[in-house]
Amino acid sequence: MDGEWRDDRVLLGGDARQRFYDSRGYGRPVDDGGLALAPVEAAHLLSRGDLDTVDGEGFDRFLATHGDTLGIRFLVYSDLRERGFYLSPARAGWVDDADPEIDLVVHPRGTGPPEGQVEYRLRVVGERTSIRADSLGDRVLSVVDEEGEVTYFHTDRPTLEGDSRFDPPTATGALLADRVVVWEPPRDLYETGFYGQPLGGREMDGALQLSLVEAAYLARQGALSIDGGEAAVTERGRAVEGERFDRRLAVYALLRDRAVVPKTGFKFGADFRTYAHVESIDDLGHSENLVRVLPADYVFTPRELALDVRLAGGVRKRMVFAQVDDEGAIDWLSVGRLTP
Amino acid sequence: MDGEWRDDRVLLGGDARQRFYDSRGYGRPVDDGGLALAPVEAAHLLSRGDLDTVDGEGFDRFLATHGDTLGIRFLVYSDLRERGFYLSPARAGWVDDADPEIDLVVHPRGTGPPEGQVEYRLRVVGERTSIRADSLGDRVLSVVDEEGEVTYFHTDRPTLEGDSRFDPPTATGALLADRVVVWEPPRDLYETGFYGQPLGGREMDGALQLSLVEAAYLARQGALSIDGGEAAVTERGRAVEGERFDRRLAVYALLRDRAVVPKTGFKFGADFRTYAHVESIDDLGHSENLVRVLPADYVFTPRELALDVRLAGGVRKRMVFAQVDDEGAIDWLSVGRLTP
Repeated sequence: MDGEWRDDRVLLGGDARQRFYDSRGYGRPVDDGGLALAPVEAAHLLSRGDLDTVDGEGFDRFLATHGDTLGIRFLVYSDLRERGFYLSPARAGWVDDADPEIDLVVHPRGTGPPEGQVEYRLRVVGERTSIRADSLGDRVLSVVDEEGEVTYFHTDRPTLEGDSRFDPPTATGALLADRVVVWEPPRDLYETGFYGQPLGGREMDGALQLSLVEAAYLARQGALSIDGGEAAVTERGRAVEGERFDRRLAVYALLRDRAVVPKTGFKFGADFRTYAHVESIDDLGHSENLVRVLPADYVFTPRELALDVRLAGGVRKRMVFAQVDDEGAIDWLSVGRLTP
Repeated sequence: MDGEWRDDRVLLGGDARQRFYDSRGYGRPVDDGGLALAPVEAAHLLSRGDLDTVDGEGFDRFLATHGDTLGIRFLVYSDLRERGFYLSPARAGWVDDADPEIDLVVHPRGTGPPEGQVEYRLRVVGERTSIRADSLGDRVLSVVDEEGEVTYFHTDRPTLEGDSRFDPPTATGALLADRVVVWEPPRDLYETGFYGQPLGGREMDGALQLSLVEAAYLARQGALSIDGGEAAVTERGRAVEGERFDRRLAVYALLRDRAVVPKTGFKFGADFRTYAHVESIDDLGHSENLVRVLPADYVFTPRELALDVRLAGGVRKRMVFAQVDDEGAIDWLSVGRLTP
């Protein structure tokens, strides 16, 4: 069968509607009884030999002449078809909620375009395309790497809440370069509240070191007495980290306010790891999230997303990004690997 | 016992030499029979109560008044002492090969300063200190995170060699956006040489897609015929990746020349994963290295090193950085987690 290119679609006549739409979920019927295919659908039928040509072009010419991103959309479309899904190109009039940054709608297995149910809304990018963090959260990002392999990431807007409520007792600290030392800490500041770390390991008896975000938060709660108060701590934080300190403090404070305990995520290359349930450090559970703190207008490269998400998956934690705007308001974004 | 601060050292008299140097490896004897301590050693003895004061100052005052980095050096020194090592501050005249970027020399367990043997040469930094890639390779980097935990990284200058020799047969390709398609590939290009990936999964019969670095390298070998030749491929590469493409191609080419097979490392957030022994893709072993390509003058943040190294460790691969200069010359740097 041969197709004809018209108005950004490929038109088919004859029994195309029965063969391709009714039984296999390609395209959309048109008024004259024929079938309209989006380019990615035509490419897929050409690649399988179900379609011979479009305006005389075979698969190779068709792929080369219908836009730079047709190749990667074809790879994703083929991959999901092979996994047993029917897909709809997310064109206006073809699917509900068409969005210029959504390329394909994936229907639940066993259903197709006529039912109109949605399993995933998919954005397709090559590994060299940057992605605005604020464009994610309600879609699956499918990234085609330089060798044509597809990786799927689900993206969501989670809520972080815990039940690690702790009223910090008062303590006195001293700034020491980029940390604060509490020489005579109340015992439960560390053991119940999980603030700070004992200084110098087991040999030292008692002293506790606090990170600058911990110290600034405690000072703000009125629980840490320190020369210069909270202002002195945040000033030191900005001196060693710049604006990033304010973003990290905003995230730290919001998590503590929500009864989630943030501790450093350094060993995982993140800003924080978080614990939703801390009763005592002797009975510490698994930390659930890795949190990376970003400016609100941050733009990801797919490669760094792959790195963060892979690492988090490997240590059975959820990867969460905190997007912090200039007023300190925070949007949460979680990204995880998806196997469709 | 009390010490006295003089010329950047702490001087002790009495039986200090016997108590601290002969039996426990602190400091260096001085001519008058006394003992000189570096600040980090004095801090450690103060923290343990073995020393009462230095010029009347106790541990807390001493730590606060002897430099911004004394705190982190103290944390590393204490950690390694607890692990059973003797250490020498790497001062000129105290150790061989003193280097301003080496802070501590760690002696093999059971030995001390008098024997002068070296287990590790240590650089100590806080997690906020940037590190030039070219300053690494023959030392252990110890990073103190914001909560005072120490992470150790061994750094080496490895040689990458393999035995995956393969003479590529000739093929014809076509540029398609940011990849190259070989519509009728010789079978062993993929199956033995591990060039490219089959296009569109199992459904497609035959066609192979090559990444731009694979295509550029094959064109340079005279094995890929393509419109515009190697120049057209590298031009496309630069259009989509900038200078980074030239660096990645230099690394790809050197690895292939050394009979190592590089494939994309995208799923690991790296540029390449590498296979030293490929006989056939049906019998593909484990890839040994993750390679990240960097400009020669690259500067790491400790956090990104932690991320890359942790991920590589989690998938049992070595993390290798390829530092590429403007002429395409490459220095290899491997970094791994060390538990002293």
